Amino acid sequence: MAFGRFQDFLSSLVKRQRGLFFTNSEEASIDELVEKLMGTVGEVSAIVTARQVLDHYSELDDEQKLEFFKNLEQKFNANQAMVKLAFDSYDSDPSSTNLNKLSRAAEPQRHELLRRLNSTPDATHDLVGMRADLLRYLRGNSELKSVDEDFVRLFSSWFGRGFLVLQTINWSTSAAILERIIRYEAVHEIKDWDDLRRRIDPPNRRCFAFFHPALVDEPLIFVEVALTKEIPSSINLILEDKGIGVIDSSEYNTATFYSISNCQPGLKNISFGNFLIKQVVQELQSEFPSIKTFVTLSPIPGFQKWLDTSSEEELPKLIELKELVNQIAKNPKSIDEHSEYIRQAVFIYLLQSKKGKHPSDPVARFHLGNGASIHQLNTSADLSERGLNQSRGTMVNYLYDLKSIETNHERYATEGDIEFNEKLKSLLIKG
Amino acid sequence: MAFGRFQDFLSSLVKRQRGLFFTNSEEASIDELVEKLMGTVGEVSAIVTARQVLDHYSELDDEQKLEFFKNLEQKFNANQAMVKLAFDSYDSDPSSTNLNKLSRAAEPQRHELLRRLNSTPDATHDLVGMRADLLRYLRGNSELKSVDEDFVRLFSSWFGRGFLVLQTINWSTSAAILERIIRYEAVHEIKDWDDLRRRIDPPNRRCFAFFHPALVDEPLIFVEVALTKEIPSSINLILEDKGIGVIDSSEYNTATFYSISNCQPGLKNISFGNFLIKQVVQELQSEFPSIKTFVTLSPIPGFQKWLDTSSEEELPKLIELKELVNQIAKNPKSIDEHSEYIRQAVFIYLLQSKKGKHPSDPVARFHLGNGASIHQLNTSADLSERGLNQSRGTMVNYLYDLKSIETNHERYATEGDIEFNEKLKSLLIKG
Amino acid sequence: MAFGRFQDFLSSLVKRQRGLFFTNSEEASIDELVEKLMGTVGEVSAIVTARQVLDHYSELDDEQKLEFFKNLEQKFNANQAMVKLAFDSYDSDPSSTNLNKLSRAAEPQRHELLRRLNSTPDATHDLVGMRADLLRYLRGNSELKSVDEDFVRLFSSWFGRGFLVLQTINWSTSAAILERIIRYEAVHEIKDWDDLRRRIDPPNRRCFAFFHPALVDEPLIFVEVALTKEIPSSINLILEDKGIGVIDSSEYNTATFYSISNCQPGLKNISFGNFLIKQVVQELQSEFPSIKTFVTLSPIPGFQKWLDTSSEEELPKLIELKELVNQIAKNPKSIDEHSEYIRQAVFIYLLQSKKGKHPSDPVARFHLGNGASIHQLNTSADLSERGLNQSRGTMVNYLYDLKSIETNHERYATEGDIEFNEKLKSLLIKG
Amino acid sequence: MAFGRFQDFLSSLVKRQRGLFFTNSEEASIDELVEKLMGTVGEVSAIVTARQVLDHYSELDDEQKLEFFKNLEQKFNANQAMVKLAFDSYDSDPSSTNLNKLSRAAEPQRHELLRRLNSTPDATHDLVGMRADLLRYLRGNSELKSVDEDFVRLFSSWFGRGFLVLQTINWSTSAAILERIIRYEAVHEIKDWDDLRRRIDPPNRRCFAFFHPALVDEPLIFVEVALTKEIPSSINLILEDKGIGVIDSSEYNTATFYSISNCQPGLKNISFGNFLIKQVVQELQSEFPSIKTFVTLSPIPGFQKWLDTSSEEELPKLIELKELVNQIAKNPKSIDEHSEYIRQAVFIYLLQSKKGKHPSDPVARFHLGNGASIHQLNTSADLSERGLNQSRGTMVNYLYDLKSIETNHERYATEGDIEFNEKLKSLLIKG
Repeated sequence: MAFGRFQDFLSSLVKRQRGLFFTNSEEASIDELVEKLMGTVGEVSAIVTARQVLDHYSELDDEQKLEFFKNLEQKFNANQAMVKLAFDSYDSDPSSTNLNKLSRAAEPQRHELLRRLNSTPDATHDLVGMRADLLRYLRGNSELKSVDEDFVRLFSSWFGRGFLVLQTINWSTSAAILERIIRYEAVHEIKDWDDLRRRIDPPNRRCFAFFHPALVDEPLIFVEVALTKEIPSSINLILEDKGIGVIDSSEYNTATFYSISNCQPGLKNISFGNFLIKQVVQELQSEFPSIKTFVTLSPIPGFQKWLDTSSEEELPKLIELKELVNQIAKNPKSIDEHSEYIRQAVFIYLLQSKKGKHPSDPVARFHLGNGASIHQLNTSADLSERGLNQSRGTMVNYLYDLKSIETNHERYATEGDIEFNEKLKSLLIKG
Repeated sequence: MAFGRFQDFLSSLVKRQRGLFFTNSEEASIDELVEKLMGTVGEVSAIVTARQVLDHYSELDDEQKLEFFKNLEQKFNANQAMVKLAFDSYDSDPSSTNLNKLSRAAEPQRHELLRRLNSTPDATHDLVGMRADLLRYLRGNSELKSVDEDFVRLFSSWFGRGFLVLQTINWSTSAAILERIIRYEAVHEIKDWDDLRRRIDPPNRRCFAFFHPALVDEPLIFVEVALTKEIPSSINLILEDKGIGVIDSSEYNTATFYSISNCQPGLKNISFGNFLIKQVVQELQSEFPSIKTFVTLSPIPGFQKWLDTSSEEELPKLIELKELVNQIAKNPKSIDEHSEYIRQAVFIYLLQSKKGKHPSDPVARFHLGNGASIHQLNTSADLSERGLNQSRGTMVNYLYDLKSIETNHERYATEGDIEFNEKLKSLLIKG
Repeated sequence: MAFGRFQDFLSSLVKRQRGLFFTNSEEASIDELVEKLMGTVGEVSAIVTARQVLDHYSELDDEQKLEFFKNLEQKFNANQAMVKLAFDSYDSDPSSTNLNKLSRAAEPQRHELLRRLNSTPDATHDLVGMRADLLRYLRGNSELKSVDEDFVRLFSSWFGRGFLVLQTINWSTSAAILERIIRYEAVHEIKDWDDLRRRIDPPNRRCFAFFHPALVDEPLIFVEVALTKEIPSSINLILEDKGIGVIDSSEYNTATFYSISNCQPGLKNISFGNFLIKQVVQELQSEFPSIKTFVTLSPIPGFQKWLDTSSEEELPKLIELKELVNQIAKNPKSIDEHSEYIRQAVFIYLLQSKKGKHPSDPVARFHLGNGASIHQLNTSADLSERGLNQSRGTMVNYLYDLKSIETNHERYATEGDIEFNEKLKSLLIKG
Repeated sequence: MAFGRFQDFLSSLVKRQRGLFFTNSEEASIDELVEKLMGTVGEVSAIVTARQVLDHYSELDDEQKLEFFKNLEQKFNANQAMVKLAFDSYDSDPSSTNLNKLSRAAEPQRHELLRRLNSTPDATHDLVGMRADLLRYLRGNSELKSVDEDFVRLFSSWFGRGFLVLQTINWSTSAAILERIIRYEAVHEIKDWDDLRRRIDPPNRRCFAFFHPALVDEPLIFVEVALTKEIPSSINLILEDKGIGVIDSSEYNTATFYSISNCQPGLKNISFGNFLIKQVVQELQSEFPSIKTFVTLSPIPGFQKWLDTSSEEELPKLIELKELVNQIAKNPKSIDEHSEYIRQAVFIYLLQSKKGKHPSDPVARFHLGNGASIHQLNTSADLSERGLNQSRGTMVNYLYDLKSIETNHERYATEGDIEFNEKLKSLLIKG
C-alpha cells in the first residue's frame, strides 16, 4: 500500500514551480514576499511564495529578523475603519451575525499570514523555529508580545491534544529520533550512545515521547522512567543503575519519572507535559499491574537562589540555615549531618515562595499544577555540581496518585492549595 | 515499538473517570452539561464532560438538536460590555496589543466550546457529524449561519493541508476502508464488492483518498482513475471495462479521473478536492512517465434543468433544441444523429450559465476553479438513467495541464475566464 | 525505510533476462527445460530456467502433467553405480564421513530439482500448487508416492514452525486476504462479505490465521472463534448470533473454535493446525484473563457412514439405532426425543471406530491427536443438510485444557488412549 | 491488526511448561538431554527439551563443546543394519520407492536432531552460533567435517533465497540494527556513531543488508555504496568524503560498492553476497536512472603475502619488485614513482595466483565468481596500515556489468576465465 504525505507532494510542487514562475524573486525582500503572499490568489503560487518567505527568513541575521517581527507587529493588524464599521453594527445589534463579522474584522492579519505560511512543506517546523527566535527578542521588545500571542493562538489549535501521538522510545527506535533524545535531554545530560542505551534499553527502564504528524522524527517532549521496588531517594542510583538492578517484572511496584524534557523552545506554553505523564501512568499500569506508585525524582532549581535572596521574616531560621549551607558548599559530606534542617528549608521554600498564588519553583509549579503532591524530600540525592549549586543536593518526589490528581489540580488551580504527604508535617511544626 | 494514540489514553480516562465523578450527571440536560464544560478548570473533568455533551447530543431528536443549535447561537456569543470596552481602547489607540484584546473579546464563545468539545476522544468525528446536522437545519433557520461559520473557521484550521495524508486504495486496503468507499461513491454507484474490485484492483485502475489522522479509517475524499491509451469518450467503456483492456504499463498515455466523491457532508466547503487531483497527477507522473494527459470524464448535472428553464434570448435555438431533447428522451438512440446540436447546447451552457461570475454547473465550477480547461464534449457518454436525465447522456473531459493550471486558476478566480480547447471554437461560431 | 522482497528483485531479473538469453526456449519441452535447469551453472540462468519450467507446467493438461510426474519418478533418482560405491565404502567403514557421502549419493535428484525450481520468484506458490495436482494423480498411480514423499520432505523444511506468522483476521484486514478467507472456509460456508463481517468484526468474535513469508497474502490455515459465557451446544447460535450477544469483555469465560480450515491442498500432511489452536489459546488467555474454557464445536463427518456400514457385533443396539436414524431422517424434530440414544451411538463411534490405533473420524483424530479430550456431545447442534447427513445433527465439544494436553497427547500417541469427560461415562455403561 | 510471531508463542510455552514438567532436568547432562529430545513424542516436550539443550550448550566451555560435537559425530549417524537392508532392496530393485527408503535410512540422525532443535524459540540464532563454534574446532578435528556438512545442508534449505529480505540501512533504521552494522563492519572499521552516520545518512551514500525472518534485527550481510560522478580511485576520498561531495542526484553516474561485510561467521559458505550486489544494482538503477557504472573499490588481501612467498619463475621481475616494495614500506610516498610496477605485479597476482582453477585472492574469487571483471588497478588507494601491509596501498575496481555478468560467471565457473578491461592489457605485455 503506497502512502504519501501531502508534504511530499507540496515539496515536489514547490521545487518544480519555483523554476517556472519565480526566477527573479530571489532578490525580493522578505517584506515584499510577505506582501505578495497575502495578495496571491492561486493556491500553488501561495505555496511557493510561502516557501520563499520561510527560506528567506532563515538567512536573515538577528537584526533583520527583529526588523521582520516589528514589521509584522506594525503592519499586519486590521483595517481600523472596517473594525469600526463592524463594531458599530454589533453595538447597535449584538447579534451572532454581527459578532462574527466583528470577530473576523478584528482578527489580526498575522493569523492569516501564519496560516498561509503553514501551507507550504515543512512550514510547521520552520514556524516553530521562528517563534523560538521571537521569544528571544521579547525581552527588549515588549510590543512584540502581540505577535507572540498570535503564534500561541494558532499553535494551540494545530497542536491540539487529539493530534498528539505517544511513542515508546527504546533501542528499536530510529537513530534519527534517538539522536534528538540525546540532544534534547535537559535535566540529566546523556553523554553518548552508550549512556542513552542504559536509559532506554534495560527491562527496568522506559522512555516515552509525544510526536505530532507535521513534525516528522521530532519529539515534542519526552519522559524517562525507572521501574523499581521502592521510591528512589537519589538520582545516582538511577543514572548509574547501582543497587536497583533488573528484577522479575512482576516485582516492580514503583515507577519513577526522573527526567522530563521539552524539546521545542518554539512551543513554549503550548503544554503537553501534564498529558504525557498521565498517559504514561496509564500505559505503565496496563503493562505492569503490580506498579501502584507513580512518583517523580525532581530537582529544585530555585532553592539556593531563594535562600540567598529571602529575608529573615520569611524564614526565621534563615541565618542559621545560610550558615549551614555555606558549610555544605565547602563540604558536601556534611549534608547528612544537617539533613533535617535542609529538608525543613526546602519544604518552607516549596510551600511559601510564590509567584502569584502558585509556587515560584518552576518544577514544583509544573507537577503541583498537574495535580501531583509533595511526597518526599531527599537530601544527598543529586551530588552533581548542578545539583549542589541549585539545591545543595536535595531532590523531591512528587506523587501522581490518579485517584486524587483531579481534585488536587482543581484545588491548586482555584485556591493555590498544595497537597503534601502527612509525614512531612513534622517539618512544618518544627519550622 | 509501542505506539499509542492519545485518543486511546483519553478513552480509558473517560471510561474510568466517568464512574468516579459523574454518577448523577446522566440526568443533566445538554445545556447544563455545556455550561458545566465551559466552567471546568480540571483537564480531566473537561475531557469527561465533553464526552458527555457529545453522547447526550447523539441521543437528541431533530427538534432537540435544533434547540441545541439555537441555544449556541443565542447564548455563546460575547460579553457585549467587554467588547465595547476593548473596542474603545482600540479605537483610541489601534495598537497590536489593543487589537489582540479586541480580537479575543470579540471571539464568539462557540469557538472555545468547540475546542473544548474536541479535546475528548473521537470528538472530531462527532463534531463533523454535528455540522452535517447543522447544515440540514440552515435552510429554515438562517440565523444559524453564524454557528456554521464558527464550525468552518475551526475545521479549516484542524483540517489544514499539511495534516492530510494521501493513501492508495487498492485490493490490499482494509475492508473497513473499502466498505466506506462503496458507501460514499457518489457519482457512479458501486454495486457490490466485485464491482469495487473491478475499479481498484486491475493494473489499469487506480484509486486515491485523503485521510486525516484524527478520523481513523474515514476517507475525506477519493478519486477513481482509469489508465488508457486515449481520452475516453464514454463512461461505460470504463465502468464495464470494454474496449480498454490491460496493456503494458509503458503504453498508457492518459489518466482519466472518472469519479470524485466527497465523503463527509460535515466537511462541506472545507475543500480538499483541488489538492487531491493535483497530488494524484504528481503521483501518476512519477509512476508512469509515459502518461502525459490528465483529464476527467465528468457529468453535467445542471444541463437539462438549465435547458428547461432558460429563456430564448439566452439561447436563440432553444426551441429547436428543446424539441430535439424531447425526441432523445423518447429515443436515446437518436442522440447520435443530433450529436452536434447537443454539444453546442452543452458548450453554451458551460460558458454562459453563471452564478456570480462563475459557471452555475457545480462540476464545471469545481474543475475550472482548480485551473482545468474544457477539453472535449462527448455525447452518448453516459446512457444510464441519471446520465440521460441530467444531460441527455453527455459528458465533459476537463483537462488538467500542470503547466497552465496555475495561470488558468488565477484568470478564472479574478476574471471569471474559462479556458477551452481550440477545437471547440467551431461550436461557438455556429452558435 | 525501503524494504524490498528478494522476490521482487528476482522477478525483474527474470523479466529482463528472459528476453536476452532465452528467445527460442519457449518451444522447448518441459522435460528439456528441466534437464537444462539441472545442468545450468549460472545463478541467473538457473533462476530464469526455473521460471520457464513452472510457467510451462502451468499450461500442461492433466495428461501431460501426469507424464511430467512420471518422468520425475523415473529419471530423477540417483546414479546407481555411485550409490553402490558409496555404500561399499560405508559398509566397510561406517564412519560419519562415509555415511554423509552415501546420504548425498542416495538423495533423489528430485530434491535438487525442487530446490532449484524454488529459487525463482513465486516458485513456492507454484510448487504448492504442483503438489496439489500430484495428490490427485496418486490414487491411480501409486508409484508417484515417492515423488510426493520428496515434496513432503522439502516442504517440511521450508514450512518449519519458526517461519510461521500468526495474524489476526478482522475487518481491518486487507480485502485480498479476506477474499481468500471466504473462498477457503471449508466447514461452515461464508455466503458473502456481510456474512464474513459477522464472523470477524463483532467484539465477541475472533479469527486467526497462519501465514508464511514466501506465500504473500495466502493464509495457510485459519480458525474462527466465538467468545461466550457458556459452552455452546449448537452451531446456529453462533452462525446466526442468536442468544449469544455481545457482553462486557470481562464476562466471557469460554472461547469456542467453531471452524478450522486448511487453505492449501498442496500442503496436506504438513501440519500447522495443532500449533494454530495452541497459539490462539495463548493469545486469547492474555487478552481475556476471564476465559478459562477452550473448546471446539466440531462436526462428526464419519458418523452416519459408519452407522450404515458397521456390523451388529460392533454395536449391539445397531438395529434399533438404525431404525431411529431413519425416523430422524424423515423427521428431524424427533431428534430431541431420541437424544440419549444418538449421543450413545456417537460416543461408541468416537471411541471404537478406529483406523490403526486411532479414531477413524478425521476431526476426532485431529483434536484428540492434539491432546484435546471429548467434553460434550450435542444433538440438534447442526440442522443444516450437511449436518443432518453426516451425523444426524450431532456435534462434539473437544476440550483444550493446556494443563493436560501434553499428557493426553503422549498417551494418545503411544497408547491410543482417548480422554473424555467423566459425565460421559453414563453413556458407556448403558451401551 | 495484531501480528504475533510464532516464536513469541513458543517462548511463553517454554517458560510455562518448563516449570511444570522439567524441574529436575537442569542437572541432566547435555548428552542425556539430546537423547531425551530424540525420544520425545509430545510436541511441547520436544520444544521445551530443545530449549534446554541449547541453553545447556551455551554454558559449556570449549572443551565440553568439542566433546559435544564429537558425540554428535560418533553417535548420531545411522542404523547400519537398516542402511544395509535398505541398500539391498535398492540394489536388487533401484526403484524410486527403494531409493527413498535408502535415502531416509542413510540420513544422518544429526539432521533430525538439528531440525528438532530448531523448533524451539530463537533456535536458529543459537544454531548459527553453534556452527561458528564448530568451525573453530574443525582445524584440529577434521572428523567433525561431517557434522559441519550437516549444518550446511540444513542451513542452505532454511536460508533459501526466497526468504531473504533486502532492507535499506539509513539514519531512520533502528539503533538495534545500526549497532550491529558498526560491530560487523569488517573491511573499513566504523569508529563510532558519527562515522556510521557519514556512511549511511548523506544523499550520496547508500547501505543495504539482507535479513532473514528467523533472525530478528540480525543483518546477514551488508554492502556500503558511494554515489559519484566518476570511478573512485582511492578509499580515502570516500571514507573522508573529500572531493566527492553531494551533487544533484541526476548527475550521479557511478555507484561504488566499497565495503561488503558478512555478519554471521556461522553462515560461512551459505552465500548471499552475489545476490546482494546484483539486487542492489537493480535497486539503484531504478532509483537513479543516470547511474550506468557499478564498480567495487576492493582490497587485495593476499598480494603482499604472495609476493613474499612466490618464486622467481612465477614472476620474473620478482627481485626488483621485492626491492621496490621494501622501499615503499619505508617510504609510502615513493609509491607514486613506482606505480606502474606495482600495478603490473598486482595484475599478475590476480591473474596467475590460483587455488584450483580460480584466483587465490579471496576478494577476487568472490567478485570474479559473481561475474564481475577486473576494471581498474589503483595505487595509493588505501594508505591505512592495513592497506599498506596487505597490498602496498593498492586497490581494485571490479566492474559489475549486468549485460555480461552471467556470461562471465559461466566462463569463470567452467573454464576459470577471468575478464578484464582492455586498458589493462598493456600491463600484461610489459610483464
